[in-house]
Amino acid sequence: MPPEFDIIEQLAARQPVRRAAVATGIGDDAAVLDIPAGQQLIVSTDTLNSGVHFPADTAAQDVGYKSLAVNLSDLAAMGAQPLAANLSLSLPRHDRRWVRDFAAGFFALAEQHNVQLTGGDTVRGALSVSVTVLGVTPQGAALHRRGGNVGDAIYVSGTLGDAAAALLHRNGDLSLNDAQRRRLYARLNRPRARLALGVALRGVASSCIDVSDGLTADLGHLLEADGLGATIDAERLPLSAAYREIFDRAGGWQPPLSGGDDYELCFTVAAAKAAALPDEVDGAPLTRVGIIEAQPGIRLNLPDGTVEQASAGGYEHFR
Amino acid sequence: MPPEFDIIEQLAARQPVRRAAVATGIGDDAAVLDIPAGQQLIVSTDTLNSGVHFPADTAAQDVGYKSLAVNLSDLAAMGAQPLAANLSLSLPRHDRRWVRDFAAGFFALAEQHNVQLTGGDTVRGALSVSVTVLGVTPQGAALHRRGGNVGDAIYVSGTLGDAAAALLHRNGDLSLNDAQRRRLYARLNRPRARLALGVALRGVASSCIDVSDGLTADLGHLLEADGLGATIDAERLPLSAAYREIFDRAGGWQPPLSGGDDYELCFTVAAAKAAALPDEVDGAPLTRVGIIEAQPGIRLNLPDGTVEQASAGGYEHFR
Repeated sequence: MPPEFDIIEQLAARQPVRRAAVATGIGDDAAVLDIPAGQQLIVSTDTLNSGVHFPADTAAQDVGYKSLAVNLSDLAAMGAQPLAANLSLSLPRHDRRWVRDFAAGFFALAEQHNVQLTGGDTVRGALSVSVTVLGVTPQGAALHRRGGNVGDAIYVSGTLGDAAAALLHRNGDLSLNDAQRRRLYARLNRPRARLALGVALRGVASSCIDVSDGLTADLGHLLEADGLGATIDAERLPLSAAYREIFDRAGGWQPPLSGGDDYELCFTVAAAKAAALPDEVDGAPLTRVGIIEAQPGIRLNLPDGTVEQASAGGYEHFR
Repeated sequence: MPPEFDIIEQLAARQPVRRAAVATGIGDDAAVLDIPAGQQLIVSTDTLNSGVHFPADTAAQDVGYKSLAVNLSDLAAMGAQPLAANLSLSLPRHDRRWVRDFAAGFFALAEQHNVQLTGGDTVRGALSVSVTVLGVTPQGAALHRRGGNVGDAIYVSGTLGDAAAALLHRNGDLSLNDAQRRRLYARLNRPRARLALGVALRGVASSCIDVSDGLTADLGHLLEADGLGATIDAERLPLSAAYREIFDRAGGWQPPLSGGDDYELCFTVAAAKAAALPDEVDGAPLTRVGIIEAQPGIRLNLPDGTVEQASAGGYEHFR
């Protein structure tokens, strides 16, 4: 049997989820899905290349987990519930153990969020994983980048800067003790897609985006969609205990503001609705970090009372 | 502006199709689509890597065209009508001219088949194009690999072996005159997705697959889905005029049987329905090449009266 088909079979055999909406899954030229009446289809594609989006020595399980997680994060930002995913896996050679470990990570997360693998492609080439996720929202309920208004509060879920700190360590620019390493690498390699939060924000958030390229870059996209600006209070940025321990050595506010790879949600809420917002959803604290203003650009209030213009400089793959 | 966003903007700006079903296209964390009531969603993903699925010196326009065409071919095999596509483009560097030419090829075909680009990703890495296409069929109307029965006639659209002959020339193993080169390379670089044929075969074909890995390999998948076999008459295989001119030098029946990259449809039709089948659909002749039999495996009737067991050996990326 040709190895290409063998890999697909190997993956299909491990596939832990069966959704009633999937009329035809792996094994045909395409998948066939039923989208329930009154629901809209939400589709997103994200690709992770070895050495660019994850360190080349990242464990196969983590590559599998993260490749699905970053895509589910896009669904979360739209307020969507996931349904299915297609996977394109490019591999330099057919390494059965690597594929097995990759599948273990991918399917652990797929099972957790009830995502059926419905197809894809395995090809020879540099290590690269491209995933397309399909989800649904009730008609008209999807969250968008546009929609924020002057005076809306800006919130961030979870904590920022942890993955960036792990990357600094990975590149030899930061020393960490064992506990810090464990906690920060978990954020880099196993990001949580905030799907429950996205659903909870339907009808509540005025706009929403996931923080993949860094808060200032992604908040910048959110604000640009409406031609608005914002002021952020640096001291309000949510930092993990592990990050606070290394704050000065890791670069202070820089990693939380522009490190990227956080996969938290950044969203805006009108004042009238902010009071009803819970403190946390599914274990992720929701922190008010700033406010939308009419003046374009992002201004950063620093603890010493000075105000800096925040640069967009997120994580730029072609830099 | 970070180049990654610049490339997406560059592509979005050229995007020639607007579908009413696309509520939100490029520019959000995900696309939002309306799937009409009574329709099923058809989804397929195919990835083309430079040096594996196309020669590294293939023109950017052809890479763009082919990356969409091979995906539309999967929709054709399901009897689906295309709606939208997501594109993940991996590039070693940001080459504006290459992206412009790629977009010209991609969008020329997208416009022809009314496919809206709804999202995707541009990343740094080895040249690779992964496309996920979304299409629709009326509820229950999709064609499948399974469904063929003993006695069903086996048909192939268009001609086989042309793309494989162009690859032989590309690799220095075959000489071609200018006219042959032009015609055969057009088949390699600009395959026609048989979408009109797929739609015409709804309710007519008992099973269907697209021929991407070579006729024997793909017909093999079709037959395996039902645990059946077939006999093919070599002399009935549809060959182009250009291929017939070089038949002996190109390897005779081998390229049409196992060369791959044809992107024709191979389908089966019950005897009772075969009479109603047109001779051609949208310029593609439909040729009866064999018959389904109970005995597994594919047997090949040769012109000298001998019968050979056809090997599955299609185009194997990991060989």
